[in-house]
Amino acid sequence: PIFVITPTFARPVQKAELTRLANVFLLVPNLHWIVVEDSPQKSNLVKNFLHRSGLKYTHLNIETPSDMKLKSKDPHWSKPRGVFQRNEAIGWIRNNFQAGEPGVVYFADDDNSYSIELFQEISETKKVSVFPVGLVGGVMVEKPEVVSGKVAGWSVGWGKDRPFATDMAGFAINLSYLLSHTSAKFASKVKIGYQESEFLKHLIHFEDLEPISVDKVLVWHTRTENPNLNQEKKFLKTNGHSSDQGLEV
Amino acid sequence: PIFVITPTFARPVQKAELTRLANVFLLVPNLHWIVVEDSPQKSNLVKNFLHRSGLKYTHLNIETPSDMKLKSKDPHWSKPRGVFQRNEAIGWIRNNFQAGEPGVVYFADDDNSYSIELFQEISETKKVSVFPVGLVGGVMVEKPEVVSGKVAGWSVGWGKDRPFATDMAGFAINLSYLLSHTSAKFASKVKIGYQESEFLKHLIHFEDLEPISVDKVLVWHTRTENPNLNQEKKFLKTNGHSSDQGLEV
Ligand SMILES: O=c1ccn([C@@H]2O[C@H](COP(=O)(O)OP(=O)(O)O)[C@@H](O)[C@H]2O)c(=O)[nH]1
Ligand SMILES: O=c1ccn([C@@H]2O[C@H](COP(=O)(O)OP(=O)(O)O)[C@@H](O)[C@H]2O)c(=O)[nH]1
Ligand SMILES: [Mn+2]
Ligand SMILES: [Mn+2]
Repeated sequence: PIFVITPTFARPVQKAELTRLANVFLLVPNLHWIVVEDSPQKSNLVKNFLHRSGLKYTHLNIETPSDMKLKSKDPHWSKPRGVFQRNEAIGWIRNNFQAGEPGVVYFADDDNSYSIELFQEISETKKVSVFPVGLVGGVMVEKPEVVSGKVAGWSVGWGKDRPFATDMAGFAINLSYLLSHTSAKFASKVKIGYQESEFLKHLIHFEDLEPISVDKVLVWHTRTENPNLNQEKKFLKTNGHSSDQGLEV
Repeated sequence: PIFVITPTFARPVQKAELTRLANVFLLVPNLHWIVVEDSPQKSNLVKNFLHRSGLKYTHLNIETPSDMKLKSKDPHWSKPRGVFQRNEAIGWIRNNFQAGEPGVVYFADDDNSYSIELFQEISETKKVSVFPVGLVGGVMVEKPEVVSGKVAGWSVGWGKDRPFATDMAGFAINLSYLLSHTSAKFASKVKIGYQESEFLKHLIHFEDLEPISVDKVLVWHTRTENPNLNQEKKFLKTNGHSSDQGLEV
């Protein structure tokens, strides 16, 4: 199967985002969704959502420690996001599968946009595949530079000297390969933009990367606006209850 | 069929947005997507995208006149958006179908989030159905107030006195019913927030509205951030070409 690991956290757009992910995942054969909530408890919203999704899934949760947690006033890139959750998912995979079993692992944040074709492309990953990601790193597209079928460098707008100048959405890992590299996990303290490099350096040498779909953008690092809820207070005052009383948004 | 009408315009996130729509539409039986570009010519991006989508579609285009067009510095609600495009699609439907044929018409902006279930619910629309929309109008959810199975008012954060206080994403129309009301179209000059009311008043009396899925949010008025492309200029200078040269994002 393709194991898709998605960290997620409670906010007004959460269910909308998860709905968009479930839509594309339903079109992918043999996908196993590992959803990891950034919360001390599993929420009913995510629990019920997954239960009714029609997808094969595993529901986990782990709260980001408060000193590591992005505060609402922090710039969004100032703290690593989803790190504890991705590690939790990797731990679950290590506990439940053994090297030799077929599969691919992919990290799919809940706000990105995914094409169906992406999952066909990554499904052939032997060790670690890398591919273009749209709308990330201050440019229209970040991608591996490929010479004679090998990764020769990175076409990026900044941090070209990073060992693996790719976004979280820009690589996939063979399941057995991940399982046989037991030290691979994400670090909670890492230079900004080095999260992926930190992780991948445990796994692979640069020259062994498999560049795939190099002339196509199949995933986009979109971000969803925080909705304007500036009438909600007035609504509460006028009506004595919030607009979403008795109804899950 | 369910005719889904989507105005769309060229911008960095366009293909990502259309990809997310195509994903959910592929899961809906008997859907016909009418995509109307806000442009003087059909773009290759949209043309190729639709061609490869696997969906039944009609591709149209009409440019919003420049005095009606939202400029990049205007607040996004200051001009009607998608009005000429929706009218173009309605015109196409009127030219190609006749009252008596089964079908439902729905306006699906390209940046909203849709659940599969929405399309099951609206497919039974006899005249005009109305239903909740999440994350719109400054509140978590706008919805019809229902008493004894009839719409009795609107649960909204502002403009409760609008004749039809619903968002573009909050209603669907029976095809034959639309065809037999030949005056129904969108107006290009209309008080802010009255677009839907202007259109619906041609079609139906308030008391004949069909409230559906009143206890569920099946569509969300999400908005996607404009991506930060602040490294693109530097990229061009360093590399002599843009980051997306030879590759469609
Ligand atoms: O406090 C947080 C913030 C983010 N995330 C998740 O971590 C991933 C990456 O976060 P985000 O998309 O905000 O990062 P960016 O778009 O800035 O790279 C997403 O799946 C989020 O849902 C999380 O679990 N806890
Ligand atoms: O100049 C424009 C701006 C918007 N739109 C389309 O009109 C619809 C509504 O626009 P938007 O989602 O920006 O409106 P809002 O979210 O502010 O209601 C969307 O399908 C857009 O793609 C368009 O065709 N031309
Ligand atoms: Mn993100
Ligand atoms: Mn919109």
